Amino acid sequence: MIIERELSLRDVRAIAIGAGILGTGGGGNPYLGRLWLEKEMKARGAGPRIIAVEDVPDDAFVCGLSGMGAPTVGIEKLPETEEFVNVVRALEDHIGQQMAALIIGEIGGSNSMRPLVCGLQMGLPIVDGDGMGRAFPELQMDTFIIGGVSASPMALTDSWGNAVLFPNIDSPFRAEAYARALTIQMGGRAALAMPLMTGLQMKNTIIRDTLSLARRIGELVLQTRESHDDPSEAVAALCNGRVLFRGKITDVNRRTTTGFARGEVKLAAFGSANDTMRIVFQNENLVAWHNEEIVCTVPDLICVLNLEDGEPVSTELLRYGLRVSVLGLPAARELKTPEALTIVGPAAFGYDMPFHPLPGHLL
Amino acid sequence: MIIERELSLRDVRAIAIGAGILGTGGGGNPYLGRLWLEKEMKARGAGPRIIAVEDVPDDAFVCGLSGMGAPTVGIEKLPETEEFVNVVRALEDHIGQQMAALIIGEIGGSNSMRPLVCGLQMGLPIVDGDGMGRAFPELQMDTFIIGGVSASPMALTDSWGNAVLFPNIDSPFRAEAYARALTIQMGGRAALAMPLMTGLQMKNTIIRDTLSLARRIGELVLQTRESHDDPSEAVAALCNGRVLFRGKITDVNRRTTTGFARGEVKLAAFGSANDTMRIVFQNENLVAWHNEEIVCTVPDLICVLNLEDGEPVSTELLRYGLRVSVLGLPAARELKTPEALTIVGPAAFGYDMPFHPLPGHLL
Repeated sequence: MIIERELSLRDVRAIAIGAGILGTGGGGNPYLGRLWLEKEMKARGAGPRIIAVEDVPDDAFVCGLSGMGAPTVGIEKLPETEEFVNVVRALEDHIGQQMAALIIGEIGGSNSMRPLVCGLQMGLPIVDGDGMGRAFPELQMDTFIIGGVSASPMALTDSWGNAVLFPNIDSPFRAEAYARALTIQMGGRAALAMPLMTGLQMKNTIIRDTLSLARRIGELVLQTRESHDDPSEAVAALCNGRVLFRGKITDVNRRTTTGFARGEVKLAAFGSANDTMRIVFQNENLVAWHNEEIVCTVPDLICVLNLEDGEPVSTELLRYGLRVSVLGLPAARELKTPEALTIVGPAAFGYDMPFHPLPGHLL
Repeated sequence: MIIERELSLRDVRAIAIGAGILGTGGGGNPYLGRLWLEKEMKARGAGPRIIAVEDVPDDAFVCGLSGMGAPTVGIEKLPETEEFVNVVRALEDHIGQQMAALIIGEIGGSNSMRPLVCGLQMGLPIVDGDGMGRAFPELQMDTFIIGGVSASPMALTDSWGNAVLFPNIDSPFRAEAYARALTIQMGGRAALAMPLMTGLQMKNTIIRDTLSLARRIGELVLQTRESHDDPSEAVAALCNGRVLFRGKITDVNRRTTTGFARGEVKLAAFGSANDTMRIVFQNENLVAWHNEEIVCTVPDLICVLNLEDGEPVSTELLRYGLRVSVLGLPAARELKTPEALTIVGPAAFGYDMPFHPLPGHLL
């Protein structure tokens, strides 16, 4: 028997925070994603229905769903139409089959919320899990693709009701290049449905229970907020990570280019301007240096939390003077295999360095 | 009864020249297109089968076919696979119907040859006519779209076997923007199948008999070449146009940017360096100034002929020192209606000037 759990508004509030932290700077603005989901829930008097990975039949069809584009664009060009429903329908029309459930492409940021909204609108359950356990900037960077699932058929939609279909594509890197070029033409933000999978393929490749994890992280932040405590240590402990730094943002260099938000943020420790941290990002935070020594790299998570309220600070919101903590959280083990590291390790982002696992988390 | 005419190698030789002239600088290198078609004809021992516009049943499906990209790229990245067959098949698979014939999207340059090759490979006849009567750089610039045919469904393929489908698109300008961005990612050259039409839609919008016209122009050049005469006056007379200039190329400024070959060519008259012509182009020649006075603009044709042999000089082959004539030929009347001029007049290319019809060709 399939056990569905309906998310409450409190769950959604927690998930938005937790997914924002797991977003490691990207995945889209979680606050805006939450507002959108809450509006849908209130209008329908119901919440998204969540099912466990194992409750999807092996031969049913499911597809990943996410927003594509730069988070700097996503806070200005808001979702205004049914582009997420459209993109799932485009894929369904193409294969002549209906989806049994929706898969969260990446749990990070508002990309956790979009499939929940779409599931509500389409009457479909959403699976508790995702393909990243975090957020990554490029579409080939998920455990489905790493696990050998084809990137095609794939569909992309814009906010004007247009769909673009990729019936077959010879490599996920080509799928990324083509979809990215289209996303830029689509105004810097698009809805993406990929990969199409059977339930069995999904079970073999998904990272399990990450929606539940996001909710637990968010609950922790909400609870410590009530007692006016800094949640950084508690979040780090829950995720087996550590607090890398506490300080003030002293400089942000950020530009929206080639479809991404790219840049660098600099921080100085409280009361010690010579104790510094530097983090580079491409939508998501990629590498952190403490006093110019590497302390964390992709695929491990570098998460910036606002010390005021424990809210995640995504890369489009970084600004001078913000008082933050920086957490290093270990990536899901599926992302740290030698095969996975060729897709999501530092070199895949152009950094000539090996993956530096967090202390205590050997490869 | 449908009368098919099979093209001979002599026909193809003539069409390559005539279509090159009608290409008004663009449409892809006609010499390379001819080599490809001749190879296919020799291998099969047969030529492409041509049918008249009226011989297509009203309820049959046909689609336009052309190469998309910059001609500067097309002479380096040659057709190497079945991308034109693939793009027609992608559209057929999508609609679940087979094409009854292929339509030449633009008669100009090697885009006249590509549907002929594809027709041979697929066993389909090609209709004597096209959507431009010349070449234009952007996909919305044809009489099908001007006549109200939808740009979608549309398909685009690359040289690696990948297809991209546009099931529906809200405007042909958006179709152009999306397909152009993809073409750049596809290496600067792609195969495009659009628009899909019924025979009736095609009959209501096509420019008739332009393949025959290209053959007649080419025959004229071949005949005058045999008598060592300059074919410029004869070609101009056949097309109701005029010779605008004779001289030497003194400067070429050409760059491949945003998916197009863009630039300007300057010429000086023989024996009179102060008597000059200047032509700007975006794949195709757009505006010609004689001593800085406008003498010809889009949609009229500005054609550069090599005085050596009467061969057309396309924009990717313009070079210092070449001795040429410049012809002004009137565009098909379908391109000179007020509606058409908003799509293919000078302003559509960013030139703040009205259309200047050639003398004797009032609007």
